[in-house]
Amino acid sequence: MVCFMVSASEFIGRDVISVKDFTREEVDYLLRIASEMEPLAESGSDILRGKIMATLFFEPSTRTKLSFEAAMYKLGGLVIGFSEPEASSMKKGENLADTVRVVEKYADIIVLRHPAEGAARFAAEYARIPVINAGSGAEEHPTQAFLDLYTIMKEKGRIDGLKVALMGDLRYGRTVHSLAYALSLYKIKLFLISPELLRMRREVLEDVNARIDVSEYLGIEEVLPEIDVLYVTRIQKERFPDLAEYTKVRGSYSIDLNVLRRARSDLIILHPLPRVDEIASEVDSTPFARYFQQVRNGLVVRMALLALILGAVKE
Amino acid sequence: MVCFMVSASEFIGRDVISVKDFTREEVDYLLRIASEMEPLAESGSDILRGKIMATLFFEPSTRTKLSFEAAMYKLGGLVIGFSEPEASSMKKGENLADTVRVVEKYADIIVLRHPAEGAARFAAEYARIPVINAGSGAEEHPTQAFLDLYTIMKEKGRIDGLKVALMGDLRYGRTVHSLAYALSLYKIKLFLISPELLRMRREVLEDVNARIDVSEYLGIEEVLPEIDVLYVTRIQKERFPDLAEYTKVRGSYSIDLNVLRRARSDLIILHPLPRVDEIASEVDSTPFARYFQQVRNGLVVRMALLALILGAVKE
Amino acid sequence: MVCFMVSASEFIGRDVISVKDFTREEVDYLLRIASEMEPLAESGSDILRGKIMATLFFEPSTRTKLSFEAAMYKLGGLVIGFSEPEASSMKKGENLADTVRVVEKYADIIVLRHPAEGAARFAAEYARIPVINAGSGAEEHPTQAFLDLYTIMKEKGRIDGLKVALMGDLRYGRTVHSLAYALSLYKIKLFLISPELLRMRREVLEDVNARIDVSEYLGIEEVLPEIDVLYVTRIQKERFPDLAEYTKVRGSYSIDLNVLRRARSDLIILHPLPRVDEIASEVDSTPFARYFQQVRNGLVVRMALLALILGAVKE
Repeated sequence: MVCFMVSASEFIGRDVISVKDFTREEVDYLLRIASEMEPLAESGSDILRGKIMATLFFEPSTRTKLSFEAAMYKLGGLVIGFSEPEASSMKKGENLADTVRVVEKYADIIVLRHPAEGAARFAAEYARIPVINAGSGAEEHPTQAFLDLYTIMKEKGRIDGLKVALMGDLRYGRTVHSLAYALSLYKIKLFLISPELLRMRREVLEDVNARIDVSEYLGIEEVLPEIDVLYVTRIQKERFPDLAEYTKVRGSYSIDLNVLRRARSDLIILHPLPRVDEIASEVDSTPFARYFQQVRNGLVVRMALLALILGAVKE
Repeated sequence: MVCFMVSASEFIGRDVISVKDFTREEVDYLLRIASEMEPLAESGSDILRGKIMATLFFEPSTRTKLSFEAAMYKLGGLVIGFSEPEASSMKKGENLADTVRVVEKYADIIVLRHPAEGAARFAAEYARIPVINAGSGAEEHPTQAFLDLYTIMKEKGRIDGLKVALMGDLRYGRTVHSLAYALSLYKIKLFLISPELLRMRREVLEDVNARIDVSEYLGIEEVLPEIDVLYVTRIQKERFPDLAEYTKVRGSYSIDLNVLRRARSDLIILHPLPRVDEIASEVDSTPFARYFQQVRNGLVVRMALLALILGAVKE
Repeated sequence: MVCFMVSASEFIGRDVISVKDFTREEVDYLLRIASEMEPLAESGSDILRGKIMATLFFEPSTRTKLSFEAAMYKLGGLVIGFSEPEASSMKKGENLADTVRVVEKYADIIVLRHPAEGAARFAAEYARIPVINAGSGAEEHPTQAFLDLYTIMKEKGRIDGLKVALMGDLRYGRTVHSLAYALSLYKIKLFLISPELLRMRREVLEDVNARIDVSEYLGIEEVLPEIDVLYVTRIQKERFPDLAEYTKVRGSYSIDLNVLRRARSDLIILHPLPRVDEIASEVDSTPFARYFQQVRNGLVVRMALLALILGAVKE
């Protein structure tokens, strides 16, 4: 393996469509720049003064949108955009190419969320300005994966060598797909915990398994005593043909103080939010809970991406 | 009574949930800082550069939202937020605690409007950043009360000694509840004018009556010749079981030039807006009308609150 | 003809309601200032720091709204507003006067879009701050006309002496009405190409024809070989009582590479966007296509208007 240095210039003007487009060295570099953004998240900054970010949200996501907006504002930039296509012309998928070619005339960077698989990459091909994928289809949500990695790194001091469990809906959640790929850049042991119906998709599993040790479980009991990181996701009722089946599953994939009695004392629990009841609120005040810090980490990771891509990070 | 000095430091990081949480000295201090904001409202300012305000509007209120946004912008800060909960997760009251703990990671202050009684205080308990109540339930709208007081002070030069009438829907309007409490901090005489069905709620009446002289009337005729301030509110059709009753009431609680012939020449008329027809448009061009100046005063009062709470006012 | 100098001071505080309110000298001056905005559109600027623009969009128009917002942001100003009236009070036309008198207390300039004919002029009469018409009723969209002129000037080096064709729906499109008036300030030859049902309204035609040479056609074949500028607009299905008629028309008023074989090699094609299929996507990559550059030109023209009206352009 040849080692190489990553520099800020590699990020200038770059699209962020999939975690698969990034090497481990690039991700490490991004996480380092994110940590350098922490003081700027407190004080605010002017390094993106005069720059405009366009948020094109073709499906609603209040939290992700607020996070990107705050990141841009903390760097001194400004934001235009829409959430949910208002004009009917923007509802039609066939016009995404035109929408992108209009919006690029007003903005310096596009942040896109879209229900269709591949929409972000399609937009990036048409746009002359960089595009960040803020979630498209069921497969990719790269900035969420980066902030998840940043949280693990910040809380545990390293990623290599950890035992990480992903639990809940591993089939439909784009968050866990991006995260599984991102984790496979590191030397970790991955545990996948889900009901049969919601197992990780075969193609993701194969990709990840080719690089790291992955094992699948139907319940958390067996692995809980040894894992360092537990990543919980929501299980949606709509995924189940049968309500009785859902009710059973829901109980088995919920975390509360009773379940956590068998956990390592330094376990950290993450969740992409919003949660419903898969983590009991009694867990919030324990040292296990890091899901709200995770939100804050999303701010600095997105600040780092915006600053890097728009060329505001000095080597 | 012990007199004490109020200083800017008392406002830093403070929640603004109810007028009942403020002493007269604090309100006087706030009104003084508001008047110091007048030139900044013209020129703009940088004193909140790098700060972010989050507007969480769980029920629509275009005017209040625009007022807070403009106040933040005039001080050099920026704004994120939503009006009406877009994501279904934000629609459920039980998630307000999580929403607040997410948004506080992106912002320096929260401005909340919510249909539920007590929602603002609940949010303030969870948030590590200050919360300003921009209207919650039927009882509280403290920043409206402050701007009403500021308008009276600015237009009449004092509040003590005035005769103030509140007219219209005194039962359901949160504006008049907050204002009645706020006025009771001053040595005023209060007249309440409403149809029987829309009389001021008993608990508000008792609280206010314990401190100042209050009298209730079914019509304005008797008190009009002696009052200094007339505060008009809208009467909504939906409050009446019987349309005939509404039609009768509506006529009796409307102000036009004919009614005003018996008013003092220095009477000022206020209204929280929007109005429908409870003040005829022919009144707009008379010296009585101050309801549009009231809007402008809302800007400087909110600028004062934001600057004080975020620590940007020098002693 | 007497020549006179136009100066920046003539624009300060001015409303922009109709192209008919502007002389050719004023339009020329505006286009010159727009070209001076080009570098500021790249770098951003601070000349409107502390200023607030209010966007009151009573009907949706994502693209126009984004364009105005980006223009304000590029000049260092900030934006408040709404798209589609959220509060019911703002839905009622009769309250536009009050809405304007509220919003003017928060902002330095209003940008208004409204479905009613005359709404922009009505608003301007009530507002103490300048109002820019961003489309009202079926007749006026002056800033679109200015950016169309700017595009022609920039791409062809002049407007006088050109042969310009407007094609498509000339009856209902407010864009072409404003543009026809604006073009009539110059010494051009105008060709109007539309189906019988969608011919230019008589009153517009008469006004324009009084100043320049205008001829009407049912098809583009005859004029295509001689025109310098082809302005295409969308034909909406809803305008036709009979679907068969629409289908026939739609084909005849579409532009593709085959049609363009008979065009001058230096023809430029414009379109106000969004387009559906009246220009085939195969045209996008030809030198004829200037409709995306047109979008960018909208940014600098709106920057010029905002800077001029708010007094930020030095003589």
